[in-house]
Amino acid sequence: MEFEKYITKRAKPLKASGIREMFKLMADPAVISLAGGSPDPELFPTDFLAEISAEILKNNGKKALAYGTTDGYAPLKEELKKRTENISSFDKEDKIIITTGAQQAIDLVARAVVEDDDLVVVESPSFVGTLNSLRSVRANLIGVTMESDGMDMSELESVLKGGKVKLIYTIPNFQNPTGITMSLEKREKLLELATKYDCLILEDNPYGDLRFAGTPVPTIKSLDKEGRVLYVGSLSKILSPGLRIGYLVCRGELCDKIEIIKQVNDVHTPCLTQMIATEFLKRYDVAAHIKKACEVYGRKCRFMMECMEKYFPKSVTWTKPEGGLFILVYCPESIDAAKLSMEAVQKYKVAFVPSNNFATNIDEKTSSFRLNYSTMSEEKIEEGIKAVGTLLKEKLGE
Amino acid sequence: MEFEKYITKRAKPLKASGIREMFKLMADPAVISLAGGSPDPELFPTDFLAEISAEILKNNGKKALAYGTTDGYAPLKEELKKRTENISSFDKEDKIIITTGAQQAIDLVARAVVEDDDLVVVESPSFVGTLNSLRSVRANLIGVTMESDGMDMSELESVLKGGKVKLIYTIPNFQNPTGITMSLEKREKLLELATKYDCLILEDNPYGDLRFAGTPVPTIKSLDKEGRVLYVGSLSKILSPGLRIGYLVCRGELCDKIEIIKQVNDVHTPCLTQMIATEFLKRYDVAAHIKKACEVYGRKCRFMMECMEKYFPKSVTWTKPEGGLFILVYCPESIDAAKLSMEAVQKYKVAFVPSNNFATNIDEKTSSFRLNYSTMSEEKIEEGIKAVGTLLKEKLGE
Repeated sequence: MEFEKYITKRAKPLKASGIREMFKLMADPAVISLAGGSPDPELFPTDFLAEISAEILKNNGKKALAYGTTDGYAPLKEELKKRTENISSFDKEDKIIITTGAQQAIDLVARAVVEDDDLVVVESPSFVGTLNSLRSVRANLIGVTMESDGMDMSELESVLKGGKVKLIYTIPNFQNPTGITMSLEKREKLLELATKYDCLILEDNPYGDLRFAGTPVPTIKSLDKEGRVLYVGSLSKILSPGLRIGYLVCRGELCDKIEIIKQVNDVHTPCLTQMIATEFLKRYDVAAHIKKACEVYGRKCRFMMECMEKYFPKSVTWTKPEGGLFILVYCPESIDAAKLSMEAVQKYKVAFVPSNNFATNIDEKTSSFRLNYSTMSEEKIEEGIKAVGTLLKEKLGE
Repeated sequence: MEFEKYITKRAKPLKASGIREMFKLMADPAVISLAGGSPDPELFPTDFLAEISAEILKNNGKKALAYGTTDGYAPLKEELKKRTENISSFDKEDKIIITTGAQQAIDLVARAVVEDDDLVVVESPSFVGTLNSLRSVRANLIGVTMESDGMDMSELESVLKGGKVKLIYTIPNFQNPTGITMSLEKREKLLELATKYDCLILEDNPYGDLRFAGTPVPTIKSLDKEGRVLYVGSLSKILSPGLRIGYLVCRGELCDKIEIIKQVNDVHTPCLTQMIATEFLKRYDVAAHIKKACEVYGRKCRFMMECMEKYFPKSVTWTKPEGGLFILVYCPESIDAAKLSMEAVQKYKVAFVPSNNFATNIDEKTSSFRLNYSTMSEEKIEEGIKAVGTLLKEKLGE
């Protein structure tokens, strides 16, 4: 049977994320993966979670196993409200919707506000999950160049002048894939431009807690008085990605519609995982847990950069993140990062993600690639970077 | 700030499910809810699940908390394959995708195959979650009348003749909301017509295991040789709805696309809930568990019908389900079921769902309503039915 004719225009151009495909390869334990975006599994509070999950099911099992409300488990919403009050001045009008990971929050927003061919601005490069979600609603994606302190604001303004933009998507803290943080000045400018040209902002902040250097910058949401910013948070990086707990903060009719779309999408996020997350936030020493994670990631990040200094050719440069999970590596233009990554996996079993995955046009030839430092041990990081360095030197003749 | 202008054409007409809204009212423990579609919470294997969840997190915590693959946890797919082999002749070409509840499976199919204005046939009345999901992709819904043995096949054929239908949605076993089961003859006819007019079939079978009377009928999927049937299953009714474990069986390029849409939607279903479901299927006496559920639901269903005989006016009739969770009650046309249900909640704190919720046109006036017998105790069922009977007698002067 020929299935192609049944597939919608919106589904047809979608390609599997190169990263998710690599994820399959990475089932091979011999592979050194600098490709993922996972927190360090050594940091998962497994014993604590084992205890509380048993406790929840024993004492409150009917609640954990029955249907829940679409907007989420009320005590979890309370805990998240407390957490988010620390990083923003959330207005009383704002509501929280718990989502099945931050990806679902982004996808719900895409379905709620992006019409066929609507112009949507994204950072260039940007997070592949969001790009694909926007593609699935047939957005017309426009990339704006990332500078060392965030999007190029004059480029952004000329894009906004050029045509009616509906939505601007940004990861202001330790961006995926660049690791770059947007300056306060640019955050203010972004909000000003969005207001002037009447676009919504989707602020995605999965890494915000993972700062290991520099000074925290207020969220764009905290600068926004009218609800123009839709804010996405996640427990994936501070608790566990596999539990799939994300959340969306937004308001008004838009929030109500997004809740209905969530209802048609998965009714609600599993109750058990929400209840586990609640107890984690309530009873675990989350501040100490995050502090430890930041120490580990800071150390690994610095170590990876030391290795790159040591093993990479001189013409190769990289971003210097103050937090998060990623470094972006820039090679001379002669390098095709997609080919390089294939060779690295085949020859040395080292995986990383070439930047075409993060481009608005996935077929674009790119010479940069993303490295993750959070998942592997320092030993493996050195081994991986050394192998990539060898490959790069070979190609560049340095 | 005015949000309406940002909302897409596809999101604008979506209304919250009346049932989900009632769910909020039902937080009041004094309400007798004949409105839900939950299994009996007394049947949840809470102690067993407490034990295995702790075991999983203790012994296999890194796996449970890390990112998983989009198509689902391999051992769960194996267990489900075994279960589904019993009820159908799944071809080796078929693949299983684990979803965050059956609702997500339906929603993914809608996104993959339904284009704006595509004709989609649904049973009239049908499951509100699917209707809303189809509305969210701007399907043109056409209802086909339910007879006591399933869809009216001659009506279906004239619809198929009348215009290009993309998809036919059916719940062949103990349908929601009618409780009706489609005969084998009609299942064969449905597949024949779908083949003749080249449409896909979405077979949704959440209640199939819950048969307490009559003889099992083969799934439509088991009659299908070419992959025209997309089959949706669920653990919501035999294990727990709150864990949100559903699955989709389909094949070919269509299956690959649906997997990618799942990737942009929520990356993957939480690992922990998938691992819990796996151990439940592997180690719990699932057959005995289902047998017990069927006994309970059969008893409650018969009891509810006895109460209706006793308390309802003679002009009111109802379906006689052989399984599942629902009875549909037909009143004389003078009754407006939507108004009746409001009065029942306000006067007697008894909740049930009027059929306009299950209609392709939600503003349609309907005189039938859905009753659920699985959730409440027999005492509450009698109290609730008595109250509804009093109201009906008042209205009908019987």
